[in-house]
Amino acid sequence: MTGLRYGGDYNPEQWPEEVWAQDVELMRRAGVNTVTVGVFSWARIEPRPGERDFGWLDRVLDLLHAGGIDVFLATPTASPPPWLGHRHPETLPVDFDGHRLGYGSRNQFCPSSPVYREHALALVEALARRYADHPALKLWHVGNELGQVCHCDVTAGHFRSWLRDRYGSLDELNTAWHTTFWSQRYGEWDEVIPPRRAPYLINPGQRLDFARFCSDALLACFMAERDVLRRFTPDVPVTTNFIGLQAPVDYWELARHEDVVSHDWYADPFDPTGHVMSALSFDLMRSLAGGPWVLMEQAASAVNWRRRNPPKPAGQLRAQSVQAVARGADAVCFFQWRASRGGAEKFHSGMLPHAGPDSRVFREVVALGADLRALAPVAGAPVTASVAVVLDWESWWAAQLDGHPSGDFDLLTRLRDFYEPLFDLGVTVDFAHPSADLSAYRLVVVPNLYLVRDAQPLVSFVAGGGTLVMGFFSGVVDEHDRVHLGGYPAPFREVLGLRIEEMVPLGPDEVLTCTSESLGGFTADFWYDDLRAEGAEVVASLVDGVPVVLRNEYGDGTAWYVGTRPSAGVMRRLLARVVAEAGVEPVLDPPRGVEAVRRGDVLFLVNHGVADVRLDVPGTHVDLLTGATVTDSVTLGKYGVAALAPPLPSGG
Amino acid sequence: MTGLRYGGDYNPEQWPEEVWAQDVELMRRAGVNTVTVGVFSWARIEPRPGERDFGWLDRVLDLLHAGGIDVFLATPTASPPPWLGHRHPETLPVDFDGHRLGYGSRNQFCPSSPVYREHALALVEALARRYADHPALKLWHVGNELGQVCHCDVTAGHFRSWLRDRYGSLDELNTAWHTTFWSQRYGEWDEVIPPRRAPYLINPGQRLDFARFCSDALLACFMAERDVLRRFTPDVPVTTNFIGLQAPVDYWELARHEDVVSHDWYADPFDPTGHVMSALSFDLMRSLAGGPWVLMEQAASAVNWRRRNPPKPAGQLRAQSVQAVARGADAVCFFQWRASRGGAEKFHSGMLPHAGPDSRVFREVVALGADLRALAPVAGAPVTASVAVVLDWESWWAAQLDGHPSGDFDLLTRLRDFYEPLFDLGVTVDFAHPSADLSAYRLVVVPNLYLVRDAQPLVSFVAGGGTLVMGFFSGVVDEHDRVHLGGYPAPFREVLGLRIEEMVPLGPDEVLTCTSESLGGFTADFWYDDLRAEGAEVVASLVDGVPVVLRNEYGDGTAWYVGTRPSAGVMRRLLARVVAEAGVEPVLDPPRGVEAVRRGDVLFLVNHGVADVRLDVPGTHVDLLTGATVTDSVTLGKYGVAALAPPLPSGG
Amino acid sequence: MTGLRYGGDYNPEQWPEEVWAQDVELMRRAGVNTVTVGVFSWARIEPRPGERDFGWLDRVLDLLHAGGIDVFLATPTASPPPWLGHRHPETLPVDFDGHRLGYGSRNQFCPSSPVYREHALALVEALARRYADHPALKLWHVGNELGQVCHCDVTAGHFRSWLRDRYGSLDELNTAWHTTFWSQRYGEWDEVIPPRRAPYLINPGQRLDFARFCSDALLACFMAERDVLRRFTPDVPVTTNFIGLQAPVDYWELARHEDVVSHDWYADPFDPTGHVMSALSFDLMRSLAGGPWVLMEQAASAVNWRRRNPPKPAGQLRAQSVQAVARGADAVCFFQWRASRGGAEKFHSGMLPHAGPDSRVFREVVALGADLRALAPVAGAPVTASVAVVLDWESWWAAQLDGHPSGDFDLLTRLRDFYEPLFDLGVTVDFAHPSADLSAYRLVVVPNLYLVRDAQPLVSFVAGGGTLVMGFFSGVVDEHDRVHLGGYPAPFREVLGLRIEEMVPLGPDEVLTCTSESLGGFTADFWYDDLRAEGAEVVASLVDGVPVVLRNEYGDGTAWYVGTRPSAGVMRRLLARVVAEAGVEPVLDPPRGVEAVRRGDVLFLVNHGVADVRLDVPGTHVDLLTGATVTDSVTLGKYGVAALAPPLPSGG
Repeated sequence: MTGLRYGGDYNPEQWPEEVWAQDVELMRRAGVNTVTVGVFSWARIEPRPGERDFGWLDRVLDLLHAGGIDVFLATPTASPPPWLGHRHPETLPVDFDGHRLGYGSRNQFCPSSPVYREHALALVEALARRYADHPALKLWHVGNELGQVCHCDVTAGHFRSWLRDRYGSLDELNTAWHTTFWSQRYGEWDEVIPPRRAPYLINPGQRLDFARFCSDALLACFMAERDVLRRFTPDVPVTTNFIGLQAPVDYWELARHEDVVSHDWYADPFDPTGHVMSALSFDLMRSLAGGPWVLMEQAASAVNWRRRNPPKPAGQLRAQSVQAVARGADAVCFFQWRASRGGAEKFHSGMLPHAGPDSRVFREVVALGADLRALAPVAGAPVTASVAVVLDWESWWAAQLDGHPSGDFDLLTRLRDFYEPLFDLGVTVDFAHPSADLSAYRLVVVPNLYLVRDAQPLVSFVAGGGTLVMGFFSGVVDEHDRVHLGGYPAPFREVLGLRIEEMVPLGPDEVLTCTSESLGGFTADFWYDDLRAEGAEVVASLVDGVPVVLRNEYGDGTAWYVGTRPSAGVMRRLLARVVAEAGVEPVLDPPRGVEAVRRGDVLFLVNHGVADVRLDVPGTHVDLLTGATVTDSVTLGKYGVAALAPPLPSGG
Repeated sequence: MTGLRYGGDYNPEQWPEEVWAQDVELMRRAGVNTVTVGVFSWARIEPRPGERDFGWLDRVLDLLHAGGIDVFLATPTASPPPWLGHRHPETLPVDFDGHRLGYGSRNQFCPSSPVYREHALALVEALARRYADHPALKLWHVGNELGQVCHCDVTAGHFRSWLRDRYGSLDELNTAWHTTFWSQRYGEWDEVIPPRRAPYLINPGQRLDFARFCSDALLACFMAERDVLRRFTPDVPVTTNFIGLQAPVDYWELARHEDVVSHDWYADPFDPTGHVMSALSFDLMRSLAGGPWVLMEQAASAVNWRRRNPPKPAGQLRAQSVQAVARGADAVCFFQWRASRGGAEKFHSGMLPHAGPDSRVFREVVALGADLRALAPVAGAPVTASVAVVLDWESWWAAQLDGHPSGDFDLLTRLRDFYEPLFDLGVTVDFAHPSADLSAYRLVVVPNLYLVRDAQPLVSFVAGGGTLVMGFFSGVVDEHDRVHLGGYPAPFREVLGLRIEEMVPLGPDEVLTCTSESLGGFTADFWYDDLRAEGAEVVASLVDGVPVVLRNEYGDGTAWYVGTRPSAGVMRRLLARVVAEAGVEPVLDPPRGVEAVRRGDVLFLVNHGVADVRLDVPGTHVDLLTGATVTDSVTLGKYGVAALAPPLPSGG
Repeated sequence: MTGLRYGGDYNPEQWPEEVWAQDVELMRRAGVNTVTVGVFSWARIEPRPGERDFGWLDRVLDLLHAGGIDVFLATPTASPPPWLGHRHPETLPVDFDGHRLGYGSRNQFCPSSPVYREHALALVEALARRYADHPALKLWHVGNELGQVCHCDVTAGHFRSWLRDRYGSLDELNTAWHTTFWSQRYGEWDEVIPPRRAPYLINPGQRLDFARFCSDALLACFMAERDVLRRFTPDVPVTTNFIGLQAPVDYWELARHEDVVSHDWYADPFDPTGHVMSALSFDLMRSLAGGPWVLMEQAASAVNWRRRNPPKPAGQLRAQSVQAVARGADAVCFFQWRASRGGAEKFHSGMLPHAGPDSRVFREVVALGADLRALAPVAGAPVTASVAVVLDWESWWAAQLDGHPSGDFDLLTRLRDFYEPLFDLGVTVDFAHPSADLSAYRLVVVPNLYLVRDAQPLVSFVAGGGTLVMGFFSGVVDEHDRVHLGGYPAPFREVLGLRIEEMVPLGPDEVLTCTSESLGGFTADFWYDDLRAEGAEVVASLVDGVPVVLRNEYGDGTAWYVGTRPSAGVMRRLLARVVAEAGVEPVLDPPRGVEAVRRGDVLFLVNHGVADVRLDVPGTHVDLLTGATVTDSVTLGKYGVAALAPPLPSGG
């Protein structure tokens, strides 16, 4: 397909068939060209074990295809039917406390259960066999938002196999988990169990490996389904939709094994700069995909799962959708097409709300369809960045274990602390795994990298002339959550030119006063490091002299260390300097609340605020959304958007 | 009996027999004429299965009767003895998480347990057989504060039977529960279970039906006992005491099956207008009973189950007790006569405190006895109202399910938002079920009616000339918690003359600014509806024009809609106008904090504040409490009370 | 050994053997003379059931001894190896909810488990047999921080045996537990169970006895190990380390059965007067020991188990350590010698931090070694006090049960309310059990004694001329948590000259205004008693006249009652007056934040603040820490310390 995909989850089994034709007609009116079918259809397709009814689905797919609408076909394995839990309670997940959960909700399966796996794969095979050649089929959508965790005895056995593969011997495991402490040495494999509620802190090596295992177990669920699908449709790409910015699954690993990266994203309506986290998540998706990605789910208006769920104000849907395209999405989809009449998500908005087509929401959905058609030229185009932000799932898991200096440490907050000033400066970033080749970047930002397997890629990057910025609580432990000894952050001490003896988390109301010639005086909070410079230049320090921001020349490059949490304005000043020194070019210097990002040769501007803003955009452009010619400046109203392309060559 | 009953729970098995005679003597001193015996006596009566000891109870009842004290005899089935839990652990309740709870407390029974039922009914029969003809027996008091919920497998079977009765077929159940969503379709009855802890939100239809089932299961417990009792004493009325304003049991249903409505009420000492919730609960009880009711439990001073439990200040006990009589109570009783020396409730005050008869509390108890004798003329008299407030248990259950626009929605708060201004205006109200015949009322207030089975009674009420006031989040779903489509609140759109596209819950600190010609500018919070008038007059709107208060002429009547939560003062102004237009007559226009209500021909005035207040009461009355003649005005001191009767006909 | 012991937990099994020699060298450099070995070594010593490896431990002990370092040898029974939980899941503890906890942490044993006991004692015997004659062995350290609680069925049987021993008959138990209330009468012993999660409040007599039983079950674990050890080494003293100020075990009982009292203490870094709680705990330890005690664990810098764990500021370690010596410690030890590289406590600081010997922490550790050598003369010296504070574990357990007037009542806060003003006044106190002979004291302070078995010792103390100060919620119940009737606090009404009818807990924001001729007007919060004086002089009262502070002459003595919670300044003024009237001599009148305490003939002064303070110390002294002569005054800097001894006799 050329152009952008537009659509949403379509769950027609919720409605009588007479509604389906109306759905297709309204989809066409809205410009919908693609829908995802089948996500929650297991019980409808297989109402009793082995007894399958595909007739309704045949009719749905045929109807859609006849209407010119493509299908992302889901394997409905995220939500097993009641009969599976009833007949095979061993497929139901067991939580950390030892409760076996019930059905009546969704996601109630143990990823390690062979019984679940057997039933799921049989269904996937039947589905693939039946629809392999259906002309509407464009993408396989495996399961839904992989994230289930189980602590049952079957999982325990699976975990032990995984550990045997990883360590080879119990001695290796005992060493890795440091079981000499607290008398935790394992004498036989059968003694090893998943983390379960215990009298006190649980071994962090065990917890970290269990996090890895759970990610791998879910990955294995995905790959088993993918392999079945590929047998039948080697040419149809396979995805599974990520569940926003969450920790359970290593997205780098999962992305590596899927053909298309797809993302479910629901911006927080009560977060005044929620669009920054959206941008962050979109940049991450693009980086995971190495190119265009699919916004598989967003909400047309309200969701139903936060404590308070207001609708989106008029216009915001457009701004948020164009934002995704600007940052590399080639598809803008929703959960779900038609708002449910009943069930647990009936107050989750749909593209077609309870109020019907005569509604603000549906009118915005129709208008968005037109906008996306106008943006067709950017489909497939790249977004390029000369800055990379490092994000690593195993470090994330480890950094958020307990028994740490601060129980308030939150990786997403740390990411935001560094991402937001770059966003405000109009600097586009990629995300990168810490083992990646970073040589294409001018600047690499490491908000946090608590766990470091191998510091060499980052060290070499600096030595080779790059600029590194690193935040506190980095470089602390190895892959087994064992401290790198000799002063933190041992693997980075040389490149950073400093040595930390102790880490100092602060109380919730504590504020530090810092002095800096170049940044001016400022305040900071949350944390500081009791460190001394060993070669680095001190850029800012506490009033008692402890350095908090340092800059170190290393090899041909420069490494910065930010050992506290400066206020947002200072972070912006600091990163402006770093960006400038590193020779990074912002897309634009946008006013606060306005997003500027370039995709291909189109400059996207999004006003996330409600006041009008005027921006200087030197030269002449055509706004793809309006067709208007824009010369030297553009004004964006509330939630206003522009997609400025170079003028068409005259006479072209 | 003529006059009012006065007394409390009497648990003499806690004390040596020599104390009993002293109890009766002190009861007589206090004017106590009725006590409730046996609530927690199962283990004392039946110390081992089938082995019964009634001797002590014979002596208690004879002693009371000899002292002129009537008895409400309780079936002690709320608190099974340890031997039942020990020998039959299957009678112990299982919670939502799957824990089977222990004994050592009270209420530890599964309402669906046939083993519990068998033991309970055998005991009830023995009790009825023995005391059927005891002259002290005036009322059967079944169990105590029905509210137990269980999620065990026996309950699951019982739930399935109940569902079969309700739906007839699994197809009907699948449709009602909208199981096509999230792959929850049931293929066999055995698959259906109660809601149990699950990975995410549980099917709301399942939860709503389980709430109905739990209410019915408790009702069945009550009816089984009642039927046994009626076999032996067809002329002795039967009650069970409600546990305040709580959701677990549908009080309309329970009240329909009992002969007397009785109520346990403990005003919150830290709520400065706690007396308003008291009034609300008392009006509800009167409405449930269709006439006089019994205040079965209140506290003479402190309770022991809130986080902080201060005693009542001097005088408040009298004010709160007279308040109950004013709103229809024919009995004022307490938990409990003599404060326990040991056990879990020893810090719950008694009429006779730990300090003994030489105490403020006991002196107030004695004085209250005299007051209640003086109020004897009002016994049996009606309280009449021309306003009804609609309250429906199944809508309450449904409105408080999860996955909703606001997780902060609380039905009792919504009730209070509308009840309090009416209370302040001196307007007396009844409560009514939404299916009730409302034609006798001038005004019907619907603070919330999220679930609507049948809108016709309310619509007809307006069409027939009545005035309706409805609050937001009403008319949203049908009896199966499925949305009424086409714009909220579909069943009431026509009568209200408006259409809502989306509901907008607010953050905890958000405040709306509203404009209104008739009400003046005001603020509101918590919620507003994105609505447009379709015929209704806009009385108030947000500054951006969204209507928030509307008034619609419909048929011969008028319907108001309040789509936000205006500040309390505005609610009072608004309802004052509604009341006036509807031709509703307040009892009086009382100063703030003073309650005015008429029972029979007696005007009750209660000052719930601590400052003196002077009220105009035109004409001449006799204060029943003092015998004094009151002309044109009366002054009430701190917690002061007056019961103003018409002067006796001269020479009568 | 003469002088003070200095050292810490040494867990060499965490490190390769080549590190051990370096450890001993650094210990010697730091002046460490004693280490605790083996606390968590079970799995290392006995990697498989019955298969023991002592070789490594032989080498450790020999190496230490060769280095001149004594050993406290721990029985590693606090942390059973995984094989015990795996092979004998019945040894794992079951919590209140009925969950059997997992291993992978520590402390996972049921104190009543015979299987655990058997394995633990076999290991203890092997350890004792092997090292009975090792010259490094100076003390047995049994287990670690006893505190485990279990609710399993084995525990239930053990609890029943304990109850049979205590009560002899079920009738006695039924009476004690007041089971006539709520139908809880037990008909057979087998029906009795530990408290387990139930629908509502659990019988408080049952809960109180279970608290006693749990304490006794842990005591029995200790005594069983102690008895084995004594068989082999009758001359080696035995201790077990207390876990700070906590409720689970009756320290008076445990201390009675051990040879040495040892204490783990971690001051709260976010508590600005945390040093006061330290002093309180140290005074308690000295009182439990009846003389010198061992500070078995403290942190060299940060811990890892609070929500936020900052390091200690420079100098504080010294101040806190000297504080312990000043209050009677003859040993200053740490958890742990070398900070772990891995495991759950790796961020708990060690004497030797991750940064290595070139670090502030290690330099302070070395300096502290020198300080402690300089303080050798005080080893064994007594601290004397003429004031006793009463603390009773069973009253603590009972006072914190639920269903009470205030759920915010916290015994430690009450202790602090009375201890802190005495500390500020420079008054040294002992702690005493309420049954103790108090005749040696001038003043006895009872912050709270909710449960009173026998009031006679306190009454006699006053009658004999002593001064008593008692706080509210005292004297309420007997040993079975049954109210002493007739007005609170019945057992003390006569000695206090007052009678309380009701207790009045306040809301969190309520403030009382009090008037007093001698104390001036003041505010109070949390609570007051509705009391009347019956003979006592009213020292302060609420504005409405309710007395809140009273003073009563009784026999030859005086009894004070404080029926509210006056602000801290007023408590200081009040206690200053009491202290003066009782003829108690403060050590000194220190400025705020400075601690003054005398041990033997040495006056210790500790500045817990960061500003310099100058104190008058009339006469001439020698500061043991510096050797300097001090005349008439001394100045202490930030965290400054002085240990002022009388000048050496000239020519001595």
